[in-house]
Amino acid sequence: MDIIRIDVGAAGGPKVSTEGLGDYAGLGGRALTSAIINKEVPADCHALGPENKLVIAPGLLSGTTAAMSGRLSVGCKSPLTGGIKEANSGGQASQVLAKLGIAAIVLEGEAQGDDLYKVLVGKDGVKVETDNSLKGLTNYQLMDKFLPEYETKGSMISIGTAGEMRMANSTVCVTDIEGRPTRHAGRGGVGAVMGSKGVKVILVDGADTKARQPANPDAFKAAAKEFVEGLRKHPVTGQGLPAYGTNVLTNVINEAGAYPTNNFSTGQFDGASAISGETQAETENSRGGEGSATHGCHRGCIIQCSGTYYDKDGNFLTKQPEYETVWAHGGNCGIDDLDAIAMLDRLDDDYGLDTIEMGATIGVAMEAGVIEFGDAQGAINLVHEVGKGTPMGRILGAGTEATAKAFGIERAPVVKGQAMPAYDPRGVKGVGVTYATSTMGADHTAGYAVATNILKVGGDVDPLTAAGQVDLSRNLQIATAAVDATGMCLFIAFAVLDQPETFQALIDLLNAFHDWNLTADDVVEYGKGILKNERDFNERAGFTSKDDRLPRYFKREALAPHNVTFDVPDEELDQLYNF
Amino acid sequence: MDIIRIDVGAAGGPKVSTEGLGDYAGLGGRALTSAIINKEVPADCHALGPENKLVIAPGLLSGTTAAMSGRLSVGCKSPLTGGIKEANSGGQASQVLAKLGIAAIVLEGEAQGDDLYKVLVGKDGVKVETDNSLKGLTNYQLMDKFLPEYETKGSMISIGTAGEMRMANSTVCVTDIEGRPTRHAGRGGVGAVMGSKGVKVILVDGADTKARQPANPDAFKAAAKEFVEGLRKHPVTGQGLPAYGTNVLTNVINEAGAYPTNNFSTGQFDGASAISGETQAETENSRGGEGSATHGCHRGCIIQCSGTYYDKDGNFLTKQPEYETVWAHGGNCGIDDLDAIAMLDRLDDDYGLDTIEMGATIGVAMEAGVIEFGDAQGAINLVHEVGKGTPMGRILGAGTEATAKAFGIERAPVVKGQAMPAYDPRGVKGVGVTYATSTMGADHTAGYAVATNILKVGGDVDPLTAAGQVDLSRNLQIATAAVDATGMCLFIAFAVLDQPETFQALIDLLNAFHDWNLTADDVVEYGKGILKNERDFNERAGFTSKDDRLPRYFKREALAPHNVTFDVPDEELDQLYNF
Repeated sequence: MDIIRIDVGAAGGPKVSTEGLGDYAGLGGRALTSAIINKEVPADCHALGPENKLVIAPGLLSGTTAAMSGRLSVGCKSPLTGGIKEANSGGQASQVLAKLGIAAIVLEGEAQGDDLYKVLVGKDGVKVETDNSLKGLTNYQLMDKFLPEYETKGSMISIGTAGEMRMANSTVCVTDIEGRPTRHAGRGGVGAVMGSKGVKVILVDGADTKARQPANPDAFKAAAKEFVEGLRKHPVTGQGLPAYGTNVLTNVINEAGAYPTNNFSTGQFDGASAISGETQAETENSRGGEGSATHGCHRGCIIQCSGTYYDKDGNFLTKQPEYETVWAHGGNCGIDDLDAIAMLDRLDDDYGLDTIEMGATIGVAMEAGVIEFGDAQGAINLVHEVGKGTPMGRILGAGTEATAKAFGIERAPVVKGQAMPAYDPRGVKGVGVTYATSTMGADHTAGYAVATNILKVGGDVDPLTAAGQVDLSRNLQIATAAVDATGMCLFIAFAVLDQPETFQALIDLLNAFHDWNLTADDVVEYGKGILKNERDFNERAGFTSKDDRLPRYFKREALAPHNVTFDVPDEELDQLYNF
Repeated sequence: MDIIRIDVGAAGGPKVSTEGLGDYAGLGGRALTSAIINKEVPADCHALGPENKLVIAPGLLSGTTAAMSGRLSVGCKSPLTGGIKEANSGGQASQVLAKLGIAAIVLEGEAQGDDLYKVLVGKDGVKVETDNSLKGLTNYQLMDKFLPEYETKGSMISIGTAGEMRMANSTVCVTDIEGRPTRHAGRGGVGAVMGSKGVKVILVDGADTKARQPANPDAFKAAAKEFVEGLRKHPVTGQGLPAYGTNVLTNVINEAGAYPTNNFSTGQFDGASAISGETQAETENSRGGEGSATHGCHRGCIIQCSGTYYDKDGNFLTKQPEYETVWAHGGNCGIDDLDAIAMLDRLDDDYGLDTIEMGATIGVAMEAGVIEFGDAQGAINLVHEVGKGTPMGRILGAGTEATAKAFGIERAPVVKGQAMPAYDPRGVKGVGVTYATSTMGADHTAGYAVATNILKVGGDVDPLTAAGQVDLSRNLQIATAAVDATGMCLFIAFAVLDQPETFQALIDLLNAFHDWNLTADDVVEYGKGILKNERDFNERAGFTSKDDRLPRYFKREALAPHNVTFDVPDEELDQLYNF
């Protein structure tokens, strides 16, 4: 496996070079992106300056025949948080890059002038071409232009207009099985870093590639079978997610009183049932086409939590919006109209915007009086402003914290400058600990304590009390970091947490493929190593324990209906990294 | 002397209470504001939230007959930097408040609803009245409305539309001798904090007040005489400033190659002579009226560095713009039109905007392509957008760093989020050390090493080499903190630094007035104590040595004509607070 470096600042134009993994041997996905960023990027550099790098890396098991192994990691210094960032995405690119023998693509150096580049990756190598006809194109427009080039076993990695305008809310987009630009490394503004390097699109040609071959094929095959069986028998991965997708959570979290509503001002939303996964599935199925919960985002997915959303006239609108998206543009903005939410999802994908950050930002704009809570058409108009880069769009595109600053209001639900997702930290205190302490800023995927607090997966810790949350979040953050290195979809964690044999199967997959002898303890150490790299970067960037805090209003203002504040003591938060 | 507290969040409306200095005895000006903020405001609170306070305090010698003693300190947690803030201002208010026996006015608590308050301060006490007719008024409109109420020996402290909109660039305005709103506690967004408390205007009635009486009148009188003689005989305070005002520096700094031009991209401006103090004086004098260098900003000023700027038709436009203002809206934006610069100064005063931050912000907007460098009418239009709170205005009003973030560019000349003033830190490295290390963010007044680097006052340290700059800046920052406690105009420092007898006269003034026995060493300790308070606050707010740095591009990009980068080693910067 090789690292491909593209120096966009080289004299005479971008220069491509190839090298082995060297010191990075044994690393993949988030482990690799975070190691490269921590080692090679000055922690105090500007995220949009010449010293930052964008690292795109498949996981340790990506490109193999193991199920669920298609996540792609994207790492850099974040323009949104100022800290290290790993955002990952589904879609086809991870599998194809890995099959091409690419461990990482690193974009580095200082863009010269305003040229936009198209990068072509295939079995004959990597080429960079200037293509200024791409300026101002959205992700769906890029699809229309390039689909024939990547349709067969390939994938497109791209930025929309938001990334091109170097907005702090901007994604790196990855096309799905159908070649649509519906999967995104969403968080932290990674698209802006790609844009700052002048790279608009990376076309990955997977023609004539084959699955990566394990070192020990028989052991690998056995582990793969056990792993799939484990996923199929767990109620969440075997039934819940396939039936309704992630949006099955709307009713669950709303019932729990932890559904952030109207910019985190209350914990239950009157319109929840209108936008729940159940309603969404009914809507999708009633409109024909593939319907609900019939899709994986990449080949090799057996959970199939996704689907297709058609509009009232039966035309494709977007992929089945995820729970966090439905929340961000729904309950958090007082909007209970699924069609409007699906349109917002489509626009976010098209312009290349993180749905969580965008919805949280609109919630803040609503609190500031820019539009009213519940104004679906107003929200759609605002996203168009972002995608077009109007002055209002420049405010909103800079993120939730920047929007609160521009409008002079306190209540910005952010940690380290990144917006909180769809779980109020007062009502799910374990995820509140994750928000506070994650190296990534507020991020539910960094340590999904909702599993244990609410879904009772991997144990049972009362969501409303402080006790035990730091231990819970720590264990989850370590495990998640390790999973994010494998290229595995994080949803495997439900089965892995509850079923020791499924966890063992995952370890067996790694060992059989790489000819390693990892134990469960080794995996934990591997995860810790990733977090230590990230923490080291953040400390050198100037982060302290003071950055591992929720905004003070979460400690001051009680959340209905449980009338709870966030009361995990600071001293306990400071024990998260006690390893 | 009393502290007046106004709790705007009290049940039933704002509540006024009065108390003695208590633990704060012996403190005035910046020493008092910083002590109150550090002790009473949680360092990690939101600057616009209920836990922040705004402290308005005259100095230890304000209200006495000592010359130059009319500076007013305004302190809070800064919405711009997130750290502690003391901004000070000339104008009449400091003298009048002190004569009324007021050591500080503290605005605290959570504003209820959207009401705007008018605070009336006089010898019969303090009253708070709701007056929503003030909504949306600019500072000159407030003057038109209230001048009769404060014209006689009084003053108005107010916020313009920027503070009312809680913009991170917004000032607290103080009226001058003529009652005009031309003096501002400009830096760090103190106006937004006043706005967040709902206080639009404070009318200070000085009728029937008398100068504060010293403990030892004869000694005070003798010291005052010696002090005035010292100011009159020093070439800067006795000749340079009176002749051309602060703008005498344009040619000096430009000649030195340290005049930040076109958003800090080069060190000399072709149009400098067109906007120099010499040209400005000629212009002002040719248009009649009072002309150049005929004004102090408050009664008791003997330097008289200010003047009056009339437009081409002979109508009053604004006070004589200061050097930093002329730079910010002039050379930094490629603008060489004095009338346009004076108009920008007028608009900044009217809307309540810091001219330094505003000019630096427009420079960044020009680099981002919003308008062209040199576009004077475009700059005027942009300031109107800020004052009116359009979306573009909300971006720019959030400050230089926020503007760079919104437009996705690296080159924001800021430290701790506050814009650098009119001296390039690569060409005047001593002031670069001050920018990097001041508790205030980039601030020339916090330790004006330009004096010693360029003007050769208080010694001679080569501006272009790193050697000696940290020691220089440290000494100046300590001395400045002490001066900022006295209520004295910082311009006395030129004479105090060069003439031991003038420094002694200042100490004698303090001792004679307060019946103290301070030595020179005590004054140094007093200054250190202020900085320690401020540094303590900032550390508890999460600042580290990583925040005591210039942006990396000042180390990477050489400044013409001397081809110098900022090369004071980080390790030396970290020695600034070695006391």
